[in-house]
Amino acid sequence: MYLDLKQIDKVVLNALEEDMPYGDVTTDNLISDSDTAEAFLISKADGVIAGVPVMKRVFELIDGRINVEVRINDGEGVSKGDIIAVIRGPAAGILKGERTALNLMQRLSGIATRTHVFTELVKDYNVSVADTRKTTPGLRYLEKYAVRCGGGRNHRFSLSDAVMIKDNHIAAAGGIKEAVGRIKAAVPHTVKTEVEVEDMEMVKQAVEAGADIIMLDNMTEAAMAEAVSYIDGRALTEASGDVTEERIRAIAETGVDIISIGRITHSVKALDISLRFRL
Amino acid sequence: MYLDLKQIDKVVLNALEEDMPYGDVTTDNLISDSDTAEAFLISKADGVIAGVPVMKRVFELIDGRINVEVRINDGEGVSKGDIIAVIRGPAAGILKGERTALNLMQRLSGIATRTHVFTELVKDYNVSVADTRKTTPGLRYLEKYAVRCGGGRNHRFSLSDAVMIKDNHIAAAGGIKEAVGRIKAAVPHTVKTEVEVEDMEMVKQAVEAGADIIMLDNMTEAAMAEAVSYIDGRALTEASGDVTEERIRAIAETGVDIISIGRITHSVKALDISLRFRL
Amino acid sequence: MYLDLKQIDKVVLNALEEDMPYGDVTTDNLISDSDTAEAFLISKADGVIAGVPVMKRVFELIDGRINVEVRINDGEGVSKGDIIAVIRGPAAGILKGERTALNLMQRLSGIATRTHVFTELVKDYNVSVADTRKTTPGLRYLEKYAVRCGGGRNHRFSLSDAVMIKDNHIAAAGGIKEAVGRIKAAVPHTVKTEVEVEDMEMVKQAVEAGADIIMLDNMTEAAMAEAVSYIDGRALTEASGDVTEERIRAIAETGVDIISIGRITHSVKALDISLRFRL
Amino acid sequence: MYLDLKQIDKVVLNALEEDMPYGDVTTDNLISDSDTAEAFLISKADGVIAGVPVMKRVFELIDGRINVEVRINDGEGVSKGDIIAVIRGPAAGILKGERTALNLMQRLSGIATRTHVFTELVKDYNVSVADTRKTTPGLRYLEKYAVRCGGGRNHRFSLSDAVMIKDNHIAAAGGIKEAVGRIKAAVPHTVKTEVEVEDMEMVKQAVEAGADIIMLDNMTEAAMAEAVSYIDGRALTEASGDVTEERIRAIAETGVDIISIGRITHSVKALDISLRFRL
Amino acid sequence: MYLDLKQIDKVVLNALEEDMPYGDVTTDNLISDSDTAEAFLISKADGVIAGVPVMKRVFELIDGRINVEVRINDGEGVSKGDIIAVIRGPAAGILKGERTALNLMQRLSGIATRTHVFTELVKDYNVSVADTRKTTPGLRYLEKYAVRCGGGRNHRFSLSDAVMIKDNHIAAAGGIKEAVGRIKAAVPHTVKTEVEVEDMEMVKQAVEAGADIIMLDNMTEAAMAEAVSYIDGRALTEASGDVTEERIRAIAETGVDIISIGRITHSVKALDISLRFRL
Amino acid sequence: MYLDLKQIDKVVLNALEEDMPYGDVTTDNLISDSDTAEAFLISKADGVIAGVPVMKRVFELIDGRINVEVRINDGEGVSKGDIIAVIRGPAAGILKGERTALNLMQRLSGIATRTHVFTELVKDYNVSVADTRKTTPGLRYLEKYAVRCGGGRNHRFSLSDAVMIKDNHIAAAGGIKEAVGRIKAAVPHTVKTEVEVEDMEMVKQAVEAGADIIMLDNMTEAAMAEAVSYIDGRALTEASGDVTEERIRAIAETGVDIISIGRITHSVKALDISLRFRL
Repeated sequence: MYLDLKQIDKVVLNALEEDMPYGDVTTDNLISDSDTAEAFLISKADGVIAGVPVMKRVFELIDGRINVEVRINDGEGVSKGDIIAVIRGPAAGILKGERTALNLMQRLSGIATRTHVFTELVKDYNVSVADTRKTTPGLRYLEKYAVRCGGGRNHRFSLSDAVMIKDNHIAAAGGIKEAVGRIKAAVPHTVKTEVEVEDMEMVKQAVEAGADIIMLDNMTEAAMAEAVSYIDGRALTEASGDVTEERIRAIAETGVDIISIGRITHSVKALDISLRFRL
Repeated sequence: MYLDLKQIDKVVLNALEEDMPYGDVTTDNLISDSDTAEAFLISKADGVIAGVPVMKRVFELIDGRINVEVRINDGEGVSKGDIIAVIRGPAAGILKGERTALNLMQRLSGIATRTHVFTELVKDYNVSVADTRKTTPGLRYLEKYAVRCGGGRNHRFSLSDAVMIKDNHIAAAGGIKEAVGRIKAAVPHTVKTEVEVEDMEMVKQAVEAGADIIMLDNMTEAAMAEAVSYIDGRALTEASGDVTEERIRAIAETGVDIISIGRITHSVKALDISLRFRL
Repeated sequence: MYLDLKQIDKVVLNALEEDMPYGDVTTDNLISDSDTAEAFLISKADGVIAGVPVMKRVFELIDGRINVEVRINDGEGVSKGDIIAVIRGPAAGILKGERTALNLMQRLSGIATRTHVFTELVKDYNVSVADTRKTTPGLRYLEKYAVRCGGGRNHRFSLSDAVMIKDNHIAAAGGIKEAVGRIKAAVPHTVKTEVEVEDMEMVKQAVEAGADIIMLDNMTEAAMAEAVSYIDGRALTEASGDVTEERIRAIAETGVDIISIGRITHSVKALDISLRFRL
Repeated sequence: MYLDLKQIDKVVLNALEEDMPYGDVTTDNLISDSDTAEAFLISKADGVIAGVPVMKRVFELIDGRINVEVRINDGEGVSKGDIIAVIRGPAAGILKGERTALNLMQRLSGIATRTHVFTELVKDYNVSVADTRKTTPGLRYLEKYAVRCGGGRNHRFSLSDAVMIKDNHIAAAGGIKEAVGRIKAAVPHTVKTEVEVEDMEMVKQAVEAGADIIMLDNMTEAAMAEAVSYIDGRALTEASGDVTEERIRAIAETGVDIISIGRITHSVKALDISLRFRL
Repeated sequence: MYLDLKQIDKVVLNALEEDMPYGDVTTDNLISDSDTAEAFLISKADGVIAGVPVMKRVFELIDGRINVEVRINDGEGVSKGDIIAVIRGPAAGILKGERTALNLMQRLSGIATRTHVFTELVKDYNVSVADTRKTTPGLRYLEKYAVRCGGGRNHRFSLSDAVMIKDNHIAAAGGIKEAVGRIKAAVPHTVKTEVEVEDMEMVKQAVEAGADIIMLDNMTEAAMAEAVSYIDGRALTEASGDVTEERIRAIAETGVDIISIGRITHSVKALDISLRFRL
Repeated sequence: MYLDLKQIDKVVLNALEEDMPYGDVTTDNLISDSDTAEAFLISKADGVIAGVPVMKRVFELIDGRINVEVRINDGEGVSKGDIIAVIRGPAAGILKGERTALNLMQRLSGIATRTHVFTELVKDYNVSVADTRKTTPGLRYLEKYAVRCGGGRNHRFSLSDAVMIKDNHIAAAGGIKEAVGRIKAAVPHTVKTEVEVEDMEMVKQAVEAGADIIMLDNMTEAAMAEAVSYIDGRALTEASGDVTEERIRAIAETGVDIISIGRITHSVKALDISLRFRL
């Protein structure tokens, strides 16, 4: 799973600047540059790990002499008590990076863990669990990566890189056909056109207009099943709206290709991870 | 409650750049510059609002012609169905800002709401609920503001602006007395020195060393009560570690001055807020 | 045609910083702040205009008191001698912005003009003229906009937002089928997968693998026609490689959907435009 | 020929950010980090090379493990088929950098090549070929370097670092004498004062006013010769305006010291260079 | 004494950009990349050194091949003629960095030297010499470090990190008691509250209000002594206003805890330091 | 006297960020947004003013509602007690900007004042007082402007924009003639070439080599007079090195054209200016 270094560094440098605008007033005055430490990054709960390269980068950017031995990689499961990594080197740098490394890893692993719960629930279906744009401002690239670590796949990254035609666009364009037609002529031919629909009438228009993807928004399972059957492979189908752990199998049962879920990124419980020092 | 405009803009501009690096490929091709809309920002759950000036700024920075009429201010409670604000102006700009505005407001209001739950639980005690550094990287200033909106108060903003002496610092310095002594000579006299302690022996040393604040970390309520009684006003007392809604009143009962809670920022359920359009 | 203000400003501010790191040593010492001027932006050649909002922004960012009256809009044709715009206001600001405004407008209009030559040549065919990534570093967004002004459409904006599988990727993946399969599982479902092919064998494999777009790279017109016939609508077809004014109609004749052309951006003759002052 | 690393990096990092905001979605999913390749940078046309250190830096900034063996240096001529450099290392990094490296090298070499054509034409005269401010916004420093690679020399870098008094300045100041006098008193004594003139009357005034350089703008060769003869070494003389390959020798014949040419930077045909892989 | 590398680099990179936006036009054309030099950084006056790591960083950031052998460290005294450091490596890089390195070291050492004069004058008293916010814009962090090198200690770093209640705040709040009460409820509990007073009446109110620090602003020594006696350890006492070398011992005599002095940063005589080359 | 707004804003925004990273914790909690104030900027010493537009910009950038009525402009003299400006508007913003505005104005006015002392001393001679590159890192543009406000003129702005050949360059090039020859061929023809000399032998070589400016470095007045007489207008002459108030007239007497002085920028006593509030 690829994670772009520039993207990591942008987040990490910003986070370090935020947490340490001019050093760590406690550590800088009490810990000598020659003091070294060994610290164990330990999971205190079961889950799926995401963010190990980010955590590594936090320590590297603080002090190039810190070495991080990775024992569990992104996308792998952990049980309570597992050692994810061992960090060795100057004690001052490890202390300074601790909070930033944990803040990032806990959040990303929380996302991977919850995504994994959803993907496991539908693993017997030919369906993908996808994310949305309901991510934390500033962390979208990393959070979408965490979704992939949890077995999910990504929806568009921004308003710039893919088309999603919603009710307001349809109204302004004067209909689904007109909207899709104008969009297809205007955007790069490398991009698919998705249309958000709410009922069978709209489904039919979207298919006819040549939509590449049809988002079935806030429909009942019965309505979704009917839509999928009607569409019959002429477009990808995506279910969206109020997807919970309780309901996801019923949605998968309808035959949709993709189920997109906001709560895997917008309401995440951090995975409990801690750093235990041995000076 | 003061919220610094530069801090808002830094976050909002970064978020807009992330969500819209080169425009909204759908809206830019379907909505005309002269189309206008009216949109209602509606709470779909009960809670406490935070982030209204941030939401306003999202729309202002996208299109200066958008007007936001605020009906509920930060720090005020909402019930399901309440209209928080009405946004009027060019439809394209409102559509482009929708997701970013919601992502920020939902998260900040989620923090204010959960903080408020904790502050309400201890409102009969002379105690403050405080945050920690367990915030989302890049959003700390806004999240700490949201804590204040929920009735909490802030702990230090970064490693640079206040002292917190932990076990590793004590070990390196050769004892609490040595650590506090060295720190007090080194840091600005405007800053207080906090020491994290785990038992009564450490409490006694911290008082003797002249700590301004003593953090009682992961202690039982009984141990905390004993510590508070021993300290007897010679230092501020702060309880920390695994503070839940179930347990907070018992902690307040011990007489501590401050209770700091990580989960009000690190594991937040977004407050459900939506934008309803009228074209 | 939409042009994102943030993108304009990024380029214009950088250009002004480059041309005027600390003012205009001549103008600042000779022209008084109260001197005003009227200046006419005149085309000295026939062509298609692109960059008017960019030119406007140059003057606005230098001095908010400068007013630009636009007479010819982006995408419109001009004849030698036509007045594109009239700029009125403080003379100092107009003098300072002249070179930057012209450098940008001449280049963008040069692109629009040459694109238009190509689109005119194939206007009787059901084919689009598209750009490539052979743009000037730092100006891609504006240059792709200029292509649209000239009647062309855009290919992908960057390596991040669409898939293009080339020979090296195919070799590494072990075949077209394997490459397309792995990509389709990995990337957002909103993105199309393009495969670059060189002969009929590759064309067949690409169709079978489910490629959304097949790029016929450096093929003869005969080979292209055979490929288009074989593909028969199962994928979009794109012709690429050494597309000249002389050859483009022959390529269009083969029935391809898109013809992408590097020289409309990488080797552009600036459209001759000048600014004539009336103090 | 010196090329400032900070200036290279500013352009290259911006170009990479533009072409790869979040990785290369194709390469990142198909090429393994351990795949290596060897690639030959080959000129497909005759010309003069410029930009080798820029191309090297593209690859180094993408992946520090990539090694670039330079065979032809900036300022040297190439014939079609010559190998300019061999790039060896991780295949993914080489693929990601290919387009950006070529976009920059082709443009800079195109400038050096055309500049060289002009300098060759006047090599028997005691005259310099100089550039102008008609450069690509954002690339001026590199383009002016390319001009030097082609045997030309540079005019001022910006409006801030040298004086050029034009008709509008003269009008505002009330005459050439007044303008030069005010400028000489105001600017650093390290800077020369250039005056743009159109006829003999202005030439005489400029000499009398003490101009260091006199730009003969859009004059006939006869008029230039008369001006040069009149000036007789009391100021440097610079010819400017519509300088073509056809006309440059006639201009040199007039005895001017410098001939400045806009088209060597504003209307450049990229030198055809390609990267051939051996995996 | 800790000095944050990020803070150094921010200043040094900005200074180098300012002094060398596109190289050193003299050195780049006359000194070959293979020329090496040895240069001695020599103090030409007695004083206290500050800024050695900053000077080192100037040369490292210009050319990683330059080696700096430090002979005198920050906080140590120098006599006229002492060699502070020996710089060895590429001559071009040393020449380019000379002025920036000296500009920074001379200023910081000037601050350390004058601070040291003040601290020496009061070394027999139990008092600290502190700085103020009267620092050079952009250099505050480094200048406050230089104050520590001279034996002083730091007051607050900015308006954000500590409370200072002045007359305007008191007037707006309706009294000292009201101001301190509102502030204590609003700010992090890690921060102390300082109140600026001018007479005994204000001193009494400040003590009663629970101020942590009381600034005795522009008082006579007699008034200060009375205030210190009245406060009697219930708050830290800080003397401020027109503190000269002549007067500081009389102020120390009053028993105040801290004496803050603007002139150690706002009106500094650079310590005379020069770089002597041996090519 | 022109002062570039972008340059002002760069310094002011950086200074405000430094002094107020997240608001003014005192003012933000005690002063209401509707409180207004009137404040008088008063000189407490005699001198020459510089920095009024910078001070204005501090307040404008903090709160656009603040109005600054300027009574004394840059370059004008002040006597103790003079009101330089009256600032009216929201009290909070005025309080927040006070220190930054004063820090900048006091420093710049200190430079203008000391420059003016030097220019007055030599006003009867045909000589200019010039600055050097011994400026405060980050403030060079503003400090050079302050020198002009004091009646001085500017030397080069950076290593990039003018040539200064020193002993190390001469040694590397193999002589003054070789150095000047190589430089003149390499740099823009708009730039003058200055050579630093120490004795008559070097003076002669510099004249012969065609130097535009000859810097007489650390020479006695007698030696300077001899050099000026020998040069006899064939180059500008600049005196440099240990120029004090005591010695400057004697230097002027030698007939040099320019006297450059480091101490007008590197060792400045801030002009005492204060802000008096009326709430």
